[in-house]
Amino acid sequence: MERSKFILDEKDMPVRWYNVLPDLPEPLPPELHPGTKEPTILPPPLFPAAINEQEFSPERYIEIPEEVQAIYRTWRPTVLHRAHRLEKALDTPAKIFYKYEGTSQAGSHKPNSAIAQAYYNKQEGVKRLATETGAGQWGSALALGCALFGLECKVYMVKVSYNQKPYRRIMMETWGAHVVPSPSQDTETGRRILSEDPNSTGSLGIAISEALEDAFSHDDTKYSIGSVANHVLLHQTIIGEETRKQMEMADAYPDIIVGCVGGGSNFAGQFLPWIRDKFSGEKPDMRIICVEPQACPTLTKGLYTWDFGDTAGMAPILKMHTLGHTFIPPPVHAGGLRYHGMAPIICHLYKLGLIEAKAEHQVAVFEAGVKFARTEGIITGPEPCHNLRVAIDEALKCKEAGESKTILIAHSGHGHFDLAAYDDYLSGRLKDYEYPAEKVKEALTHLPEVPSA
Amino acid sequence: MERSKFILDEKDMPVRWYNVLPDLPEPLPPELHPGTKEPTILPPPLFPAAINEQEFSPERYIEIPEEVQAIYRTWRPTVLHRAHRLEKALDTPAKIFYKYEGTSQAGSHKPNSAIAQAYYNKQEGVKRLATETGAGQWGSALALGCALFGLECKVYMVKVSYNQKPYRRIMMETWGAHVVPSPSQDTETGRRILSEDPNSTGSLGIAISEALEDAFSHDDTKYSIGSVANHVLLHQTIIGEETRKQMEMADAYPDIIVGCVGGGSNFAGQFLPWIRDKFSGEKPDMRIICVEPQACPTLTKGLYTWDFGDTAGMAPILKMHTLGHTFIPPPVHAGGLRYHGMAPIICHLYKLGLIEAKAEHQVAVFEAGVKFARTEGIITGPEPCHNLRVAIDEALKCKEAGESKTILIAHSGHGHFDLAAYDDYLSGRLKDYEYPAEKVKEALTHLPEVPSA
Repeated sequence: MERSKFILDEKDMPVRWYNVLPDLPEPLPPELHPGTKEPTILPPPLFPAAINEQEFSPERYIEIPEEVQAIYRTWRPTVLHRAHRLEKALDTPAKIFYKYEGTSQAGSHKPNSAIAQAYYNKQEGVKRLATETGAGQWGSALALGCALFGLECKVYMVKVSYNQKPYRRIMMETWGAHVVPSPSQDTETGRRILSEDPNSTGSLGIAISEALEDAFSHDDTKYSIGSVANHVLLHQTIIGEETRKQMEMADAYPDIIVGCVGGGSNFAGQFLPWIRDKFSGEKPDMRIICVEPQACPTLTKGLYTWDFGDTAGMAPILKMHTLGHTFIPPPVHAGGLRYHGMAPIICHLYKLGLIEAKAEHQVAVFEAGVKFARTEGIITGPEPCHNLRVAIDEALKCKEAGESKTILIAHSGHGHFDLAAYDDYLSGRLKDYEYPAEKVKEALTHLPEVPSA
Repeated sequence: MERSKFILDEKDMPVRWYNVLPDLPEPLPPELHPGTKEPTILPPPLFPAAINEQEFSPERYIEIPEEVQAIYRTWRPTVLHRAHRLEKALDTPAKIFYKYEGTSQAGSHKPNSAIAQAYYNKQEGVKRLATETGAGQWGSALALGCALFGLECKVYMVKVSYNQKPYRRIMMETWGAHVVPSPSQDTETGRRILSEDPNSTGSLGIAISEALEDAFSHDDTKYSIGSVANHVLLHQTIIGEETRKQMEMADAYPDIIVGCVGGGSNFAGQFLPWIRDKFSGEKPDMRIICVEPQACPTLTKGLYTWDFGDTAGMAPILKMHTLGHTFIPPPVHAGGLRYHGMAPIICHLYKLGLIEAKAEHQVAVFEAGVKFARTEGIITGPEPCHNLRVAIDEALKCKEAGESKTILIAHSGHGHFDLAAYDDYLSGRLKDYEYPAEKVKEALTHLPEVPSA
C-alpha cells in the first residue's frame, strides 16, 4: 500500500511553540519606536503583555496554553501528504511532500496565531480587537478566534479585496466580525486618504494604519497583526514542529523546503523548526527557498533597511527588506503576498545566507496550481501556488539530473475564494506584471530617517 | 485532555462498501424501464456493466478496488468530531458527534461515488462522462474524478446555479470539465424547453434529461448520477463504515442519527451501516431522522408512487416519494435538497417505519448554521445546516429532560460557495417558503401510467 498521508493523533500534537530568537547565529536587530526612533518593545497599548513578552522572549520553547491547544485540536494536527500523483505526472524521482493547512475552519494557517492572540487578549480583559486584512485570510482567522473567545472584532479590509471578495467578508461576518472597506470613514487616517483620493482602493499598509488608530483610540481595544511580527512567526511554528514528527513517520528528511512569503509567517512557521539543523551544522546543505511574486519582490529586489510596517508611520520601524511603506503593488491575485515589507526574522536569515529567495510570475504560478489540482485534487490558494511552481521546477531538475531529492512544500491553504483568478488563467486573461521599478524607487524616497541606526 | 477528534489511520480505512439490499426486511420494488414500463435493470448505454451489477447486487459487501482506495486515501478516512463547544453553548447533557465530509478536495461527500464511477467507466473503455449538477457539489466531484482518471467530463449545470455560483463552475473547469448552463442548446431536450420558455432557469430534472440524452447520443460517453440510485448509496457507505469504527474509539453509540436528504446519498451513506442493528433487533430504539426543506418536502408531503427520475421521462421509473417530476421547487439556498424525488432505498425504509422524516424552514436552518460556525468554527453548507437545526433541537430536548443522549450528525460538507445565503440570513433578507401545495398538486397530475405496478 502506497501511503498518502502521515497523520499525528491529537494527543501527539506539539505542546510548545519554537522561538528561534535565542538560537540565531547573530542577534536580530531591535524594533524602533515610530516616534522616538529608539529601540523599544512595542508600545503598551498595542498588544497584551503576554504577546509583548513573546515578541522578544529569550526562551527557546514557549508552552501553548491548554485553552489554545483545545481549540487547535478542533482541526490540528494537520495532515502531511505525499504527492504520489503529482510525482507520477512529472515522472520525477523526487519525493514530494506537502503539509496542508487548508483544513482549518478559516482555510489557512492563519488561525494558528489568531486563536493564540484572541486567547491572550481575553486573558488580559480586552473586549475588542482591531485588525487589517488584505485577501481576507487573516481577517477570517481573527474573526474566528474572536468568536470562539467571545471578543468583538473589527476588520479593516483593503477596499479592492472588499469589493472583489464579498465571500471573505461574509465569512468574517458569519463569525460575528464587523468589516469595513479600507480606507474607511471610521478613522482619521482613512478620512485623510479618502479626502486626497476618494477612489483609493487601499493597501495593506493603509489598513494597518487604520487598525492601529482604532486600537489607540479605544480603551477596550487592542491591535492584532497576522504576520511579520516575531510572535506571529512563533505561533506558526506549530506547523513545522508537527511536520518534523510526520517526516519521521515517513522516514524522510527534506533536502529542499519551499514556501511563499508575504509577511513570512506561514513559511517561517514551517522552516524555523528545521533551520536549527543548519545552525547546528547537522544539515548544512538543506535548501530553504522563499518564493514571492515578481510584482512584489520584497526579498529579491527590495532594500534591506529600516522602514515602517504601515503606511501612516504608526507601526514600529523594522529592519527588513522593503519596497517602501507607501508602495502599492500591482494587482496580482496573490493578495497575501502584496506587502511592502517582510518579517525581520526572515530578512535576517536571508542576509546571513541561510535561506534563498526566488520571484515568480503569476501565469507560471497558476499553471502549477492547475497541474496540482488535476493530480492531487486540491485547489490551492494563489499564494501557495507560488510554492507549487518552484517545487515542480525542482522536481523536474531532479528528473534531468536523475537525483531523488526530498521536497517539502509549506502549503498554506485552499483557493476556494480565489477561483476568479483560476478563471482568468483558464480563459487566457491572466497577465504577468513586470517589476514596478519606478514605483518602488519613488516609494523608497519616503523611508523614515533613523539617526540611531 | 478533552478529545475533539477521532481519527482513523488510512491503513484502517474500510475496504468494502456495504450493500443493504440483501439485508432489507422486505425486498426493494424494482425499477421500471421508462419506455416499456416493465421491471428492468438500467438500459445498457447508461452505466458501465460493473455499476449495473452493483445497482441490484445480492452481495452484502462489495470490495473497493485498490485504485479507488488509493484515491480515497488522498483525503479519507475523514474525521469524526466531538462538538464539545456546541454542547457547552447549548448547556446540554447530550453528546454531539459529527462526521465531517467537507475535507475532500471537492468539499463534500460526493467524491466517494464520483471516484468510483470514474474508475469503473475508465476500466470499461469509456472516454467521456455526462452528468447534471444543481448546486454544483456533484458536478465538482465528477470533474475531480474524471481529472484523476483522465476522462472527459461534460456537466449540465442548472442555469440558476450556473449564474449564481460562478465559483462552482470555475472549480469544475479547473479540473478540466466542460460546463454548460441547463437548459442548453446542446441537446434536443434543452432546445425544446428553451423554445417554450427562453427564460427557463432550469431544474435538476431537466439537467438529468440533458445529460441522459448526451450519453445516449455519443458512442464514447456514459451517464453518471450523483445520488438516488442504489449504487451511489452503496459507494457512500464508506462514511458510515468509518464512523462505526470511530464511534467505537469514542466508546459511544448513537441514540439519534440525523442527516439531510435531497436524493439521499449522503445520509444513507452514514445510516445504512447502522440500520443493520435495527434490522437485527439489537438497537430497536435508535432513531434515524431524515431532514428536508419545507420548500421541497419529498418524504413528509410527497406521494409514495412510481415516477420518473428526470423531467423528460428518459430515466428509469422508480417507486419513491415524489412531488412530481415536473415540479420546480421554490428557490431555497439548499440547492442539493431541491429534487422532486428521493432514493428508493430511503423511501422503502421510511414506509417500513424504520426511519423518520422532518421538514425545516430555511431561516431556522441558517440560525443553526451560524450557531455552529460560532462554536465549532466550521461554516456549513446550506444542506447540512438542516441537520444542525434538528441536532440542536434534540440536544435542547435532552437538556429539558435531563437526558444524556448521543447524537450523530452526518455533516456532508462546507459552505464556502454558499456564503451569499449566510449574507441573506445575517442581513435579515432570508425568507421562508411555504409548502407549494398547488404546484405539487399540478405536478402530480403528470405521473407516468404504470399498468404493471
